[in-house]
Amino acid sequence: MSEIITAGILVIGDEILSGRTKDANIGFIAEYLTNIGIDLREVRVVADDEAAIVEALDALRHRYTYVFSTGGIGPTHDDITADAVAKAFGVGIDHHPEVVARFRERFSEAELNEARLRMARIPDGAELIQSATILAPGFKIGNVIVLAGVPSIMQAMMDIVAPKLKSGVRMLSESIRANAREGDIGGPLRALAKAHPDAIIGSYPFLDEDKKPNTYLVVRSRDPDKLRDAVEGVKQMLGALQAPQ
Amino acid sequence: MSEIITAGILVIGDEILSGRTKDANIGFIAEYLTNIGIDLREVRVVADDEAAIVEALDALRHRYTYVFSTGGIGPTHDDITADAVAKAFGVGIDHHPEVVARFRERFSEAELNEARLRMARIPDGAELIQSATILAPGFKIGNVIVLAGVPSIMQAMMDIVAPKLKSGVRMLSESIRANAREGDIGGPLRALAKAHPDAIIGSYPFLDEDKKPNTYLVVRSRDPDKLRDAVEGVKQMLGALQAPQ
Repeated sequence: MSEIITAGILVIGDEILSGRTKDANIGFIAEYLTNIGIDLREVRVVADDEAAIVEALDALRHRYTYVFSTGGIGPTHDDITADAVAKAFGVGIDHHPEVVARFRERFSEAELNEARLRMARIPDGAELIQSATILAPGFKIGNVIVLAGVPSIMQAMMDIVAPKLKSGVRMLSESIRANAREGDIGGPLRALAKAHPDAIIGSYPFLDEDKKPNTYLVVRSRDPDKLRDAVEGVKQMLGALQAPQ
Repeated sequence: MSEIITAGILVIGDEILSGRTKDANIGFIAEYLTNIGIDLREVRVVADDEAAIVEALDALRHRYTYVFSTGGIGPTHDDITADAVAKAFGVGIDHHPEVVARFRERFSEAELNEARLRMARIPDGAELIQSATILAPGFKIGNVIVLAGVPSIMQAMMDIVAPKLKSGVRMLSESIRANAREGDIGGPLRALAKAHPDAIIGSYPFLDEDKKPNTYLVVRSRDPDKLRDAVEGVKQMLGALQAPQ
């Protein structure tokens, strides 16, 4: 139960790098993984380029428990994720009979052209991620989970694959509004972080309702007792700051 | 003039990886770079961890013309970007006299504590990125540009640093609404992409006003003639598809 499960995300797509499309998947997956006790450690965004995809995939899959990729599994020439994944794993890739059979139910003979059949190309040995509402399936091969780039489809795929993943001890967190400027609490906060090595204390400045600089302190730990101790420490520190001096 | 200028982005912050904060900087910088003729090739997001920052920074700065980092330059213990950058470049880091002098004008003696002075720590040899409205400066060292994580400040810093960057021949692009499903045009589109190797043709499915599957085709090239040729090709292809058969 005390195993730490880690993950990386690989976002594939020229449209993100050109700024044409604003990515919404990183934030969604990040929050999702936190909620199921998986630590997201790294994200990479690369172009629709086989060498770049293979390199990033290999770096991430050897380093983390899971890798989630998004994008590049559609029917057009710029959708090369499945081929890149097969290449990274050194396995073959072909039209998956189960996917082709489903496509035959859905599409007429004229519609089932080479482009659409491309979405049925799945690396050998991969497990499909599909449902009645998902047209082109995602898949899982080894520790790599290949998801669609369209947010609604990606999210449906996450719901299918998540129950099958190993999950770790969930990271607990508590957010405390400091009502103080970050620069005023940085010193005591550093001492506090040192005194609570089993908790992670993050400091996030923001402008409050009155446009005044304010700070959220976020305390995180897998151990509820250590979380409570650190939160208590933060509250005492803030109380001491606000007391008349 | 024909030099290709490339870039990587390094986003630094536990809050992005935990999903607590949704990144808005990648999309902004991506669009900004496209507009000034710099090709964004890769993005990485890493935790507030010195080893992770140094490793990603070294990978990106040796590969691309420029690296833009965001986050981790505030006054608290989890702000370690400047130190990590100094370490990656193998240079010292100290309180920058010009920044300290500006802080003395802005802060009282009591306010100018160790935490705030931390924001004046700049790697040796770096050039400051600052203005009257920016409290803690960003900096540029070698080909690495270190920006704030708060979007409004990051954006002000981009405006200061951008005019000093080498810029390449701008990537031109034209977006064409296909009024067709991606699966119906994938075949001819692949042939078209092959016939126009100096243009990049991207295909992006979306649901239109009537909730019908539709597709945007985005053609990109640095050469206006080649862009026009490829766009003409796309329009002819779409016209042929829509003609009665």
